[in-house]
Amino acid sequence: MGTVALRWDGQSLALLDQRLLPAEERWMTAEGAARVAQCIRDMVVRGAPAIGISAAYGVALAARHAGADWRGEIRHALRALAESRPTAVNLFWALQRMERVFEACASREEAVARLAAEAESIHREDLQANLTMADQALAVMAPEAPLEVLTHCNTGALATGGYGTALGVVRRLHEAGKLARVYADETRPWLQGSRLTAWELARDGLPVVLNADGAAASILARGQVSWVVVGADRITANGDVANKIGTYSLAVLARHHGVRFMVVAPSSTVDMSLARGSDIPIEEREGSEVREIRGMALAPADVPVYNPVFDVTPAHLIDVIVTEKGVVRQPGEAGMRALFG
Amino acid sequence: MGTVALRWDGQSLALLDQRLLPAEERWMTAEGAARVAQCIRDMVVRGAPAIGISAAYGVALAARHAGADWRGEIRHALRALAESRPTAVNLFWALQRMERVFEACASREEAVARLAAEAESIHREDLQANLTMADQALAVMAPEAPLEVLTHCNTGALATGGYGTALGVVRRLHEAGKLARVYADETRPWLQGSRLTAWELARDGLPVVLNADGAAASILARGQVSWVVVGADRITANGDVANKIGTYSLAVLARHHGVRFMVVAPSSTVDMSLARGSDIPIEEREGSEVREIRGMALAPADVPVYNPVFDVTPAHLIDVIVTEKGVVRQPGEAGMRALFG
Repeated sequence: MGTVALRWDGQSLALLDQRLLPAEERWMTAEGAARVAQCIRDMVVRGAPAIGISAAYGVALAARHAGADWRGEIRHALRALAESRPTAVNLFWALQRMERVFEACASREEAVARLAAEAESIHREDLQANLTMADQALAVMAPEAPLEVLTHCNTGALATGGYGTALGVVRRLHEAGKLARVYADETRPWLQGSRLTAWELARDGLPVVLNADGAAASILARGQVSWVVVGADRITANGDVANKIGTYSLAVLARHHGVRFMVVAPSSTVDMSLARGSDIPIEEREGSEVREIRGMALAPADVPVYNPVFDVTPAHLIDVIVTEKGVVRQPGEAGMRALFG
Repeated sequence: MGTVALRWDGQSLALLDQRLLPAEERWMTAEGAARVAQCIRDMVVRGAPAIGISAAYGVALAARHAGADWRGEIRHALRALAESRPTAVNLFWALQRMERVFEACASREEAVARLAAEAESIHREDLQANLTMADQALAVMAPEAPLEVLTHCNTGALATGGYGTALGVVRRLHEAGKLARVYADETRPWLQGSRLTAWELARDGLPVVLNADGAAASILARGQVSWVVVGADRITANGDVANKIGTYSLAVLARHHGVRFMVVAPSSTVDMSLARGSDIPIEEREGSEVREIRGMALAPADVPVYNPVFDVTPAHLIDVIVTEKGVVRQPGEAGMRALFG
């Protein structure tokens, strides 16, 4: 599959340090759960599905390195990993899967084997879900001629178990000969679009064009873009979607310009326990992410910054949510319940 | 007035190099018209009114340094300055004023004196227009309690002859005790918001909060912001407004959230010779402005970039245009004609 964000060799987890891309491809080995949690918090690895997969491997590592108090140590790891980031629900979903397996284990040896196997399943299933979603999205789009699409953040191989969610759809369009161009929002403040999406797509030969986030409205106004395609960090029971800051802006702009808006995310992103998007905890990160780039000052050092790194797009602005379990058109409570119970 | 973008001592023009802010306050002296044109092209000085004022001084400098063929040299300077940037009409407006004075001059000595005086008038009138507009905008807003506003790019003292257009309104609100908070979009790609607006407002003690452009939608969704206030680079006969890329996005978002949208610009920004915004030439700049920051790569070096640096906001999304000649509410052809003939 080419680009990957993480590698598991049965013993240890290697993470591609996404903070250094595209300047440098440096892998770091996370030896234990605490280090995995740190890597998630510091965004060495990011992207809702990739965070979930990494956390699962983190639990497997905790088992592998545990001593006599293996239960206590694994429970501690589950807690530490759960505290790493608040918004993407895939993290909690993966940890719950790991916890269920852990609770059924009678010995440390069993936990080592079964937790590693479960993490590998989560990883493998995520990749499979992406391939399934890409096929479903292609059927929804049913392009006759090659399309232009616009995307935000990075939802590709680097954000997932491989291939990508929204970027998987873009890849699938390209493979089908139906992709004329994909505009990539640079996605401030963390620049996932320029640093990761442009890198990943250019590397794989897709026709990517990078743009400042503020140029998206002009691009949509030109009338050539058919779909805005984005991922998700959490989808609530009414179809509201939390995703990278700037997504909500695109949804309003897409509706204003008559451009369709598609959310692509595995069912692990769905949180039926929350009624609506306003219930989702939205992470705010350091103002330095806006004031600086790699330590270089872009603004006065002491200027106050508002830096929410996710926003919520209400269901009524979304044309379709694509998951590996099926698609929800014009999402709302009924459609979500029909698919996710 | 505190911060200024340019200084004229009767002999030479000094420009604050805005590319280096906020890290460094370095002034450079432009000895002749060619150097002024270069400074405008390279964005040593930027902001539609400041560009117009600088160009006017550039013509005055051309007269001062001209030899026997003073007419030919001044005509050459007028042309070179007119080619420096395409979108902001204040540049052409200022050059036309200078050209009219120039054509009436009978000698080089007369040209030296009268062109300097005309440039000084343009400069002084711009500052006066800003003060007048701020009063008019305050009357339009008629705030009872302190307001939150959101602005884009830099329209302050650094962009004008002093005080500012949209930022002049923000200053006036602050002076009147009616400014609770001003959100400043960082304004990619050139970061006028973080580098200039945050610097200028923090320096002058205004309650500024910096945000990534993609966060503006979330900020407006919170329901606390009453007005989006922006400047303009060109306003056409139907009330369409070209301004810094990202402005159109804000106008769509403001309308979606029921937030009022105000454009503040001197009458030198109005171009009644163009019927509509689609007639305005929109400058596209180097992709490196998006791919790099100060030579540091943010994206793969060869990735294609779409980098229009202005966009057009249609009149129907604008609640009011404020000029020193009066205000146009719900702008359209009739309202524009009534004020600008």
